[in-house]
Amino acid sequence: MKRREFLSGAAVGGVATAAAAASFPKPALSQGTKRLRMQTTWPKNFPGLGTGANKLAEFITTASGGALEVEVFGGGEIVPAFETMDAVAGGSLDMGHGAPYYWKGKVAATQFIASIPFGLNATEQNAWVQFGGGQELADKVYAELGCKFFVSGNTGVQAGGWFNNDINSLEDYKGLKMRIPGLGGEVVKAAGGNVVNLPGGEIPPALASGAIDATEWVGPYNDLAFGLYKSAKKYYYPGWHEPATLLDNFVSLTVWESLPSDQKAIVEAANAYANAYVINEFTAKNNAALETLVTEHGVEVKQFPDEVLNGLGKLSGEVIGDLANQDAMSREVMESIIAFRKQSISYASFSERAFYNARSLPFQWVSL
Amino acid sequence: MKRREFLSGAAVGGVATAAAAASFPKPALSQGTKRLRMQTTWPKNFPGLGTGANKLAEFITTASGGALEVEVFGGGEIVPAFETMDAVAGGSLDMGHGAPYYWKGKVAATQFIASIPFGLNATEQNAWVQFGGGQELADKVYAELGCKFFVSGNTGVQAGGWFNNDINSLEDYKGLKMRIPGLGGEVVKAAGGNVVNLPGGEIPPALASGAIDATEWVGPYNDLAFGLYKSAKKYYYPGWHEPATLLDNFVSLTVWESLPSDQKAIVEAANAYANAYVINEFTAKNNAALETLVTEHGVEVKQFPDEVLNGLGKLSGEVIGDLANQDAMSREVMESIIAFRKQSISYASFSERAFYNARSLPFQWVSL
Repeated sequence: MKRREFLSGAAVGGVATAAAAASFPKPALSQGTKRLRMQTTWPKNFPGLGTGANKLAEFITTASGGALEVEVFGGGEIVPAFETMDAVAGGSLDMGHGAPYYWKGKVAATQFIASIPFGLNATEQNAWVQFGGGQELADKVYAELGCKFFVSGNTGVQAGGWFNNDINSLEDYKGLKMRIPGLGGEVVKAAGGNVVNLPGGEIPPALASGAIDATEWVGPYNDLAFGLYKSAKKYYYPGWHEPATLLDNFVSLTVWESLPSDQKAIVEAANAYANAYVINEFTAKNNAALETLVTEHGVEVKQFPDEVLNGLGKLSGEVIGDLANQDAMSREVMESIIAFRKQSISYASFSERAFYNARSLPFQWVSL
Repeated sequence: MKRREFLSGAAVGGVATAAAAASFPKPALSQGTKRLRMQTTWPKNFPGLGTGANKLAEFITTASGGALEVEVFGGGEIVPAFETMDAVAGGSLDMGHGAPYYWKGKVAATQFIASIPFGLNATEQNAWVQFGGGQELADKVYAELGCKFFVSGNTGVQAGGWFNNDINSLEDYKGLKMRIPGLGGEVVKAAGGNVVNLPGGEIPPALASGAIDATEWVGPYNDLAFGLYKSAKKYYYPGWHEPATLLDNFVSLTVWESLPSDQKAIVEAANAYANAYVINEFTAKNNAALETLVTEHGVEVKQFPDEVLNGLGKLSGEVIGDLANQDAMSREVMESIIAFRKQSISYASFSERAFYNARSLPFQWVSL
């Protein structure tokens, strides 16, 4: 019998149960089942992002033997998607699942926790959170929002986006009408682009009608599902603007502080599970989607020229620097990330980057 | 009060407690505290590897409210380190923490699950386990050892090793006396090297006396602690031979099958936490260690020439192919990895690899 079933049938025990409950005041027995309402900012079951949130909920519910029962609502089911944070802070929800930059209008520093043009990749971002001071900084930022912060997924390096025309030099951004939100959008604006923001559903018709010339979304797995190949055929890489977009699970501080230490550990470990699950799903499924885009839908995969990337890198530095200097907390977060990125670049040249390049040499590997 | 404290004081409740216990037969209450004895193959608290095992134990104990209490023993405390698997299978231990290739003498396929020269990196390996069929294959392999398999840590790309002489061509491996175990050792042997296997503690004196010319160990964080820079000054990269060494947590199948679903979920999530913790620790700490090696100990950091890497890549293919064809299970594991690696290389060129290279262009990034 699960603890949940036991609890719902607790009245049966009569006097003996009541006496037992009186003799152990704090464990799960006396707390009963706690239902936690979580809303995601994505549609329910959205590939990669929404499935990660589902896994988080399942793990918390199962690992707590049902003592914590997490119910998942898609964006808009309880409140509009981008009001999820307000609803958690206000107590009408217990937790939410989204991406930190959605809350930049409330606390600007969140945008630097999400993803930064030419910043950290997913492996480095996770290490920054756990060993580079990121968890403490993010908790400080999220405390202003009334929440406890957890990393709860990562998209990995995103795709560079869908274009109707070639990008051969930085000049090609002048007047380009592109849908690209966040810090990446600020950089494209600095390059002379005409940046627009559109909700997901409006992107395909806008591309098809020529209202926009280009857009980015996530990566092949999500972009294929979204049908963006129908309206633009040039698919650029790498996604310099979002090299690793971290997903957040934010838990009402009131709820978080009410949990006993075993349930806190369960929520923390379930987030570690969800974080890995999301990046693993993207890592495993993006390539097949990319192949489908190329072979079935005639998509042309193109790399941004080094000259363009170098120019965008320089503009990124200027744009991010200006934004980070606008408030003390943003500056504190960015100082930490700048230091971690410096050592990450240095170490990647000795490890991951050097290995990727070595593995791509022309030798024939194993054939069975 | 923690459930553990409650349980140790259970006698106090008298009749009421006994009656209550009788009325709910299956939850943790009636099971009491289950003590799980875990031995690691590493010394207790060994940086990165041992601390990951400690975190695994802590998380299981805390998240279960003490219903599962994991006690950690270092290698040799209960049985010799490399007899850990036998002890778990035989029931004198409940679980162990090590690396899959330690068990290749029992089931050859384990060596391909651990790490493969020019194979998958950590991100890809995790994705292979969860979404590429790796978990199912590893469970099948570990079932032969009487255990349930979990990924429980990863070193990331290791360092190429410590050398007294330059490696300018594949010819330089001829007659080279090198300590390098596993598949990497087989490849060096195929290149004409004189491969020796030494336990960790014997490596520094062997290097110092000239009994060996070169050795590999893990990466800067562990290699610095080990003092290898005292005996060799040329530190090569990348670690083509172990691009991501996965650590295993193996749980006696008898114990695993006896756990209720909530405790199974706790063990699974705690392993996800430990897996991330270990790679995060290495990612965060390797670079500072590398800087210390260079600036304080005069270590010369050198990259293997492309010609050498290409030659080692080709030899790796031949050596691994021969070994994988020796038994059906090895072949099945390698076929799965070959397919996943092929798509990983393709996707990395669009994402991680392309991003690492873009980030290393000469532009000036943020300065505050």
